[in-house]
Amino acid sequence: MQTEKEKDSKIKAAVLAEYTDSELKGDPELLIDSARGINESKKFSATFADSREFLSKALNSAASLIITKKGLLDELELESFEKTFLLSDNPRRVFAQTAQLLTDRPYFTANISAEAVIADSAELGKNLSIHPGVIISENAEIGDNTILAPGVIIGPDVKIGNDCLFHPGVIIERESEIADQVIIQSGAVIGSDGFGYASDKRGHHKIPQQGNVVIESEVEIGANTTIDRGASGSTVIKKGAKLDNLVMIAHNVEVGEQSMLVGQVGIAGSTTLEKRVTLGGQAGVVGHINLAENTTGAARAMITSKTNQGDFISGAPAHDHKDALKEQAYLRRLPKYIKKIKQLEKRIAELEDK
Amino acid sequence: MQTEKEKDSKIKAAVLAEYTDSELKGDPELLIDSARGINESKKFSATFADSREFLSKALNSAASLIITKKGLLDELELESFEKTFLLSDNPRRVFAQTAQLLTDRPYFTANISAEAVIADSAELGKNLSIHPGVIISENAEIGDNTILAPGVIIGPDVKIGNDCLFHPGVIIERESEIADQVIIQSGAVIGSDGFGYASDKRGHHKIPQQGNVVIESEVEIGANTTIDRGASGSTVIKKGAKLDNLVMIAHNVEVGEQSMLVGQVGIAGSTTLEKRVTLGGQAGVVGHINLAENTTGAARAMITSKTNQGDFISGAPAHDHKDALKEQAYLRRLPKYIKKIKQLEKRIAELEDK
Amino acid sequence: MQTEKEKDSKIKAAVLAEYTDSELKGDPELLIDSARGINESKKFSATFADSREFLSKALNSAASLIITKKGLLDELELESFEKTFLLSDNPRRVFAQTAQLLTDRPYFTANISAEAVIADSAELGKNLSIHPGVIISENAEIGDNTILAPGVIIGPDVKIGNDCLFHPGVIIERESEIADQVIIQSGAVIGSDGFGYASDKRGHHKIPQQGNVVIESEVEIGANTTIDRGASGSTVIKKGAKLDNLVMIAHNVEVGEQSMLVGQVGIAGSTTLEKRVTLGGQAGVVGHINLAENTTGAARAMITSKTNQGDFISGAPAHDHKDALKEQAYLRRLPKYIKKIKQLEKRIAELEDK
Repeated sequence: MQTEKEKDSKIKAAVLAEYTDSELKGDPELLIDSARGINESKKFSATFADSREFLSKALNSAASLIITKKGLLDELELESFEKTFLLSDNPRRVFAQTAQLLTDRPYFTANISAEAVIADSAELGKNLSIHPGVIISENAEIGDNTILAPGVIIGPDVKIGNDCLFHPGVIIERESEIADQVIIQSGAVIGSDGFGYASDKRGHHKIPQQGNVVIESEVEIGANTTIDRGASGSTVIKKGAKLDNLVMIAHNVEVGEQSMLVGQVGIAGSTTLEKRVTLGGQAGVVGHINLAENTTGAARAMITSKTNQGDFISGAPAHDHKDALKEQAYLRRLPKYIKKIKQLEKRIAELEDK
Repeated sequence: MQTEKEKDSKIKAAVLAEYTDSELKGDPELLIDSARGINESKKFSATFADSREFLSKALNSAASLIITKKGLLDELELESFEKTFLLSDNPRRVFAQTAQLLTDRPYFTANISAEAVIADSAELGKNLSIHPGVIISENAEIGDNTILAPGVIIGPDVKIGNDCLFHPGVIIERESEIADQVIIQSGAVIGSDGFGYASDKRGHHKIPQQGNVVIESEVEIGANTTIDRGASGSTVIKKGAKLDNLVMIAHNVEVGEQSMLVGQVGIAGSTTLEKRVTLGGQAGVVGHINLAENTTGAARAMITSKTNQGDFISGAPAHDHKDALKEQAYLRRLPKYIKKIKQLEKRIAELEDK
Repeated sequence: MQTEKEKDSKIKAAVLAEYTDSELKGDPELLIDSARGINESKKFSATFADSREFLSKALNSAASLIITKKGLLDELELESFEKTFLLSDNPRRVFAQTAQLLTDRPYFTANISAEAVIADSAELGKNLSIHPGVIISENAEIGDNTILAPGVIIGPDVKIGNDCLFHPGVIIERESEIADQVIIQSGAVIGSDGFGYASDKRGHHKIPQQGNVVIESEVEIGANTTIDRGASGSTVIKKGAKLDNLVMIAHNVEVGEQSMLVGQVGIAGSTTLEKRVTLGGQAGVVGHINLAENTTGAARAMITSKTNQGDFISGAPAHDHKDALKEQAYLRRLPKYIKKIKQLEKRIAELEDK
């Protein structure tokens, strides 16, 4: 995905079609220079429509290339085509990939600022963009093409792969290991101490947190999210997982591949999320449980026990979403039914009196 | 409100009365040098009392000026007045304005530190206070009288107005636009990428977030709060809105004028809050809905559908607050009523047997 | 606890036994060099087992020293002992103390970086470790042996005690007072303005927050947690309290000694937590109430009224945990009981018809 060399040039529609595995209809030689929302579209930009309404808007916009579904276009029964089209069952994905190709990586400079502080023992790869105020500590290793925006702090003994992008003020604590193509938003903290104490009457004795954080490739971490290091062993965020802002990942948690954790989610210690677990905003998960593949927890779900593959749960404590909805509906009617119970009681009393 | 020139001097009671639109009783020439809570009050300080109890305390304190309600003072039927008074229906507001006049703006130096890193292409206004460790990136523009405390990071192409105060470690991402008299507390992140992906079997493809954040005048943003940039177009925080700490604002949200969002609130993408929406701590709002003017969501409300003007809602999912309270009360009595149902069943069976 | 002088040397088992107040069984002269989890254990390391299963694993591990309960060891009726043991009723506490003795303090250098910015008026103690990018403002005072990791910002007039450890990017706002042996994780903000406004039709007038934050000794604060300064007077975190990540403490809150606040907890203004209050993850507490000693609020509890000593509460609004569990169980059965009510109604109607 890292193709910054091309960002200033235009890309032919035919190249976009091949790269995004979509069907081209129109001018294969058309040069596209940007991908934009319909309201922001311009000549030579690509835009995106996944409904009949948006397709009509797109046809009337300035955009030169429209990414849409084959079926939607056919429905319109157009006789002539002034635009060029990329057709796919998943136009949103095609738009995402097109936009990635056409969008500059932010903070790309291929330059190491004189205002950064870099330890002599750090090992730096090629083609790095290192901004003012960056601090790279002893024995840190950084791969090629990685971008460290202003004020990023890399602790001692950290390993970072290729093609990463860390936004301003990201903090990577000591001994963290981060693979390739990882994006971390501003203010996120990777590798803070886990919350581990042994308590007695005199107080809470800190258990030194001796593990680390391991982040696999293609992960994205949101702004001001915190990921604690393992007590011993590692806290692991697996390949392609996406974490939103202000998420809290406790020590020794494992977040499965392609999982998605929306803003303000919290996961307590030693819990495992298998592949493609999705948790809505402000959801919480207790410690030491396993969420099976494809579990979905709705926004604000409070998950207190393990799940089975494909479960869709909500509520506090979380359970089957349909049941939870039903209970909520009954709860709304509860005042009415309690009145009913009182009426029934009276009628029974009258019957008993007879 | 920015009157730091006066901060070291004292202000006459008559001037305070005029500035705060309150009624003076006592010595118009009295010079006041500070505004303090009753327990901290000193000679020549103003203090504040909005109840009979606090007014008695204030009268016995060292404060020289008491800000209170006319009615409260009349009730006491004092014969002589040793203090000077400012009287208003909203003494809290009068105290706030008095305290603003008498309190130094923190981090005001009117000096640009040699330890800041400022891009040549940045445009700086007059009378700035720029502290050590501040980084101002390419093409940033900063208005007059603005204060950037230590470690503030201003990204490329950011525009900042006059009289702003950014506390230590604030991060303003690229292309954000911030108007006048905006206060941002430490660690807040403005303009992080929104959480936007197009998913297929191979994973989640990042949709480049090409919009920005627009913050209007007189907004205040709390510590470690995060505001995501628009996917395309802007995330907007309108005039006079106040956001507390650890709040999460997703992409393309619009927060209405004078809205108040208390700590740890989360708003999902593309939701609009109209004017004067108030959300209590830890409340959450789903994406793509509209909260009408003067909507109040109680603490922890989980708001899942649009509201009407003046609605007061609570619970999860949130609905009319009175109904929610009633349901909670019935829920508490549910065990009792279920026992009652079993008794009724028995009594009916006995009747049926006869 | 601060014994970094010894960290590179080994410690005799007999010394560990005495320091941790545990019973030694085996070789008092055995030299131990580390404390590790069972899976990471090596020759000369100490490990920890608090169940029969873990004790068996520990006996088969490479660890030279096993910290366990006397009773567990006796149960095994071992005839010979190849390992050395420390025996205690609280082996977890013994392990914590052992690990503290054997683990290096992170970021310890006993060196002041030339890349730090230190105001002339700051007063520095002895044996400090001050890393690149640290900023120490005017009139700050820092005690002995304290460690400031890269990028820590100390505001004006801050007082910090001895033996503290502030991780990268910690922000201490002006006038905060921090005692000895305080650990603060990355990105935490101490002393941000409280959320205080006086509102009228024209908007929300900021009440200058003139107080500060006071943190007593042996407190630990988690990553990206925020603690607001008092409106007037202080926000206080008392001795030995432990706060996890992303916790929000509003102005004038008092957190009692040895209290534990798990991730994402929020406490509204002027609330007091007495000693040893424990709040689970994502719990919230309204303002201006008192939580009595040894109150436990479960994860996600929404605490809206004062508690009595030893209360264990959960739910929203929080009330007695056993009652809350019972209500949840009844709520699950509510659909069934409402069906039952309808059946009873029919049976009564039939009886009435007769």
